[in-house]
Amino acid sequence: MRFLVPFAVREPNTRLASLFEADERREFATVLLEDVLDAIRASGGSPEILATAPLDRDCPVHVDDRSLSTALNAILQDATEPVAIVMADLGLATPASFEALLEPDADIVLAPGLGGGTNAMVVRDTSFRVDYHGGSYQKHREAATECGASVETVDSFRLAVDIDEQADLAELLLHGTGAGPAWLRDAGVILDRTGGRCTVRRAQSGD
Amino acid sequence: MRFLVPFAVREPNTRLASLFEADERREFATVLLEDVLDAIRASGGSPEILATAPLDRDCPVHVDDRSLSTALNAILQDATEPVAIVMADLGLATPASFEALLEPDADIVLAPGLGGGTNAMVVRDTSFRVDYHGGSYQKHREAATECGASVETVDSFRLAVDIDEQADLAELLLHGTGAGPAWLRDAGVILDRTGGRCTVRRAQSGD
Repeated sequence: MRFLVPFAVREPNTRLASLFEADERREFATVLLEDVLDAIRASGGSPEILATAPLDRDCPVHVDDRSLSTALNAILQDATEPVAIVMADLGLATPASFEALLEPDADIVLAPGLGGGTNAMVVRDTSFRVDYHGGSYQKHREAATECGASVETVDSFRLAVDIDEQADLAELLLHGTGAGPAWLRDAGVILDRTGGRCTVRRAQSGD
Repeated sequence: MRFLVPFAVREPNTRLASLFEADERREFATVLLEDVLDAIRASGGSPEILATAPLDRDCPVHVDDRSLSTALNAILQDATEPVAIVMADLGLATPASFEALLEPDADIVLAPGLGGGTNAMVVRDTSFRVDYHGGSYQKHREAATECGASVETVDSFRLAVDIDEQADLAELLLHGTGAGPAWLRDAGVILDRTGGRCTVRRAQSGD
């Protein structure tokens, strides 16, 4: 099983721009990436990064500046073994999350993300092609059916939350176990419990 | 194991007011409640409703108009067997979700909800008391530790999504299997894939 982690080197986490400057967002994205790589390693996997630009990390890095789907499909086309694809911003993922991802005995295993995305998947039928543009979970189910592949879904909150919007940072502070929540706390990000669901804000003097 | 499902009879789903009128919200809440009751029954459980006002449903209904926590703690105080507490708006829950909830062998089992809530829990140590006000997941972990109870967490996307905000309706349309998503479709609610994460809108002529 190969573990591919796509990573956008420039301009990550643009939807957190109201909270962080560009250099902070890049640093935070790298911290989340390292947490994901660590969790994959602790589950027994050997991660590889698929990056949009050169990147110095302690694992193999494939550079491909084409779209995410095009770059991944080029790898699937040549794959000689099953491939797991894991988003780099799964800040709640633990080693057990990745063990659960590998458990179902299906050609295609999907871990849905909030809002219809596909946060992690296992591709054992390498005739399958990914399409991450807009509502990919349903597209991936349909694509699997079209190529005659069996499909199973992993029911995991930890895999469903990608750290993309401000509310996701609350999930990271509440449930995260890696360096991501520690980075947030150092940046002065605190839980805000004034509404129905917790969200976050940056602490001000007096907090 | 008793299965208690708290239900607010008046004014449910106020955070969906931009999409639905009050009578629609009440109808939708009842559809979601019935889906939850059905899933509990299909998992082998016998649900009971804890309602804020009299309600005619095909299962035992306890009426208590005090706060959710006060009403539940009164039941826990007198309980002679373990109690599962399941929110009435878990529109993605399946029979397998409730089987997974009962699986961990711990005094207190928590299924976190988005934004720090506790969407489902099992209380096997009835000296434990609930507190659903603001960020209840962390409070429940602390309360369990204080009364010397063991705690485990269930990692489930289907239990984590309560149908509370507009974005949650997208999850129901994407992943729901009960009458809830069918009700939404009849009400003309459709997926909106124009942003990063899918959300919903009510269809207009031309859709």
